[in-house]
Amino acid sequence: MKNYKQFLFLLVAAVSVGFVSIVFVLRWVLYFKEGLAWDGGLAEFNWHPVLIVTGFIFIQGIAIVVYRLPWTWKCSKLMMKLIHAGLNILAFIFAVISLIAVFDFHNAADIPNMYSLHSWVGLAAVILYGLQIALGLCVYLVPIIPGSLRQTFMPLHVYSGLFIFGSVITTALMGITEKLIFGLKNPKYKDSPPEATFVNVLGVLIVLFGALILWIVTRPSWKRPSEQLLRSAQGNGGDASSAKGGVMLSACRSADQDDPEANCEARKRNCKPDESGQRSTM
Amino acid sequence: MKNYKQFLFLLVAAVSVGFVSIVFVLRWVLYFKEGLAWDGGLAEFNWHPVLIVTGFIFIQGIAIVVYRLPWTWKCSKLMMKLIHAGLNILAFIFAVISLIAVFDFHNAADIPNMYSLHSWVGLAAVILYGLQIALGLCVYLVPIIPGSLRQTFMPLHVYSGLFIFGSVITTALMGITEKLIFGLKNPKYKDSPPEATFVNVLGVLIVLFGALILWIVTRPSWKRPSEQLLRSAQGNGGDASSAKGGVMLSACRSADQDDPEANCEARKRNCKPDESGQRSTM
Repeated sequence: MKNYKQFLFLLVAAVSVGFVSIVFVLRWVLYFKEGLAWDGGLAEFNWHPVLIVTGFIFIQGIAIVVYRLPWTWKCSKLMMKLIHAGLNILAFIFAVISLIAVFDFHNAADIPNMYSLHSWVGLAAVILYGLQIALGLCVYLVPIIPGSLRQTFMPLHVYSGLFIFGSVITTALMGITEKLIFGLKNPKYKDSPPEATFVNVLGVLIVLFGALILWIVTRPSWKRPSEQLLRSAQGNGGDASSAKGGVMLSACRSADQDDPEANCEARKRNCKPDESGQRSTM
Repeated sequence: MKNYKQFLFLLVAAVSVGFVSIVFVLRWVLYFKEGLAWDGGLAEFNWHPVLIVTGFIFIQGIAIVVYRLPWTWKCSKLMMKLIHAGLNILAFIFAVISLIAVFDFHNAADIPNMYSLHSWVGLAAVILYGLQIALGLCVYLVPIIPGSLRQTFMPLHVYSGLFIFGSVITTALMGITEKLIFGLKNPKYKDSPPEATFVNVLGVLIVLFGALILWIVTRPSWKRPSEQLLRSAQGNGGDASSAKGGVMLSACRSADQDDPEANCEARKRNCKPDESGQRSTM
């Protein structure tokens, strides 16, 4: 891998910022707010930010970059697909439970549902995320799907994945804005009490996490190498990463020896350089 | 250009959605709110959303895709750089005036400045945008800067440009949320009066505009061809787009005949396919 140290630094930074965001959201609801419960009240609402930050932002972010971790390149592509899909499904479950918490709270408190821009964009993001996962499972995990279709669908799959991730962060920032306006009465949000500043910092951390994940995932040189390249390196007992911190290819890659995408990739090795930026990362 | 009709359809869709967004924000402030004035009151505040949507979102979006318009490929790279920089500077001026309007309004109404997450992310976006423009001017328009430095800086320039664009849209959606909560009293935002629904739709239109611009600008096959390719097509009296709707290369490209980036690009034509995704689009 080219610039392996830089990759590692940014990955550690992203995971650290994501982890600190989770600590921040927990401190917000446990220290500044009403804690966590499932009682239809404000403590049930508090599951909403906790599950969104933990699942829909942090776990989704990790799912996005999981193919880029060079120590996974020795694993079969099928296994990586299952990890990628599994993390996204987990994030989706977190998001759905977080929605149930809000609807429960709204219904108990007689607050209308779905009136705000936050709710519109947020629900659209959850629905699109569900569709993205369902389509991803069909196209990339159903064995009869031809490699050419997988290749054709990949640019849309990658784009919509990143777009949904960005939309979730946008929605979270709108949600923080709403909650600080509605939740702070005396002193108000505009008086900058400690909770306001603390949660603003949480918002900034979420933006930073998104920025790091998006930078890592859009560097072409940090892509998982093509299956053909990995296999030839494996055949030579070689090091596919061809740089410091590289990964010795070894045992666990065998499940996708006849993966149609790999064959399709091999046929496409003479493609135009500009097009290759869209090679499958899934 | 590959898939020229698809490109044209998406470009027209983006411009239309952007144009409708401007109409929406004007209708919001002129019909639902207090109109426009420069009096320190709410009518001065209203310049803020108008200038942000018109300048910081719409004009910036057009600046981002301007290199991709195939009918500009006959123009010199220097001219396109000046157009790209000019549009971004115009958007920056709009953003700065829109900030002055808010600070004026806040100071006149004795509302604290810079307390909200919206203001934090928004001000950071304006400052980063200013830095992005200043650095872009230095690196890409100062003639003594070597082509290799321009190439090295390009991935960061492209990434930060798109990241700032996304951050501005995020900030706009937070701003809409704030304004609808603070501005709607009887009926409130949660009662979904016509203004609330109308401005929520404006938010969705802004997201859609962003989605279209980001899709257009991240398709590798819609990049402006390298200068070498354009020159050889020009030399042959040929058609660089090699597809329907292509552009006959002609007169106005001459200013950058000895552009160091073009030479550097030529040297890099043997680069690895995955790296070529980062070729200069500026």
